[in-house]
Amino acid sequence: MTTYRLEIRVTPRPGILDPQGKAIHHALHSLGWSDVDDVRVGKAIHLELEADSEEAARAEATAMCEKLLANPVTENFEIDRVETGTTEAG
Amino acid sequence: MTTYRLEIRVTPRPGILDPQGKAIHHALHSLGWSDVDDVRVGKAIHLELEADSEEAARAEATAMCEKLLANPVTENFEIDRVETGTTEAG
Repeated sequence: MTTYRLEIRVTPRPGILDPQGKAIHHALHSLGWSDVDDVRVGKAIHLELEADSEEAARAEATAMCEKLLANPVTENFEIDRVETGTTEAG
Repeated sequence: MTTYRLEIRVTPRPGILDPQGKAIHHALHSLGWSDVDDVRVGKAIHLELEADSEEAARAEATAMCEKLLANPVTENFEIDRVETGTTEAG
């Protein structure tokens, strides 16, 4: 079994209102960054997972997103591997 | 001027308590994923920015993180480029 470190990014779908992104956009403009546009805020979830292969780890993470981490109506998700370590027990 | 699309990830520093991560960890265990560990939740901020070069865009994004987006005491940030488009006006 290998320990996989994954990053899951959950972001609002295009067209869905994002009040947190709007607030940050506004704050950046107030601070003088007038060339910033289209600010969207999502979640970046890091977790460690034991699995036999990277495909298995990604499949588990996809199931977690579908069941708990993302709202399929309003949010998209992406899964990336960050780094791999091996555990002592096989 | 080129439009850069950046992703800024703001995550709690190691050692800082992360109650949202703990709650997700607990919920994943309750749903049967007992092999998940070390869940940390941060923000994934996407934004569009006009700049002369990628270095200039990253420097601007770093300044935004230091001034507004991240709390330097409790959070780390990383900046990635997502994709580049060119605007019609130079």
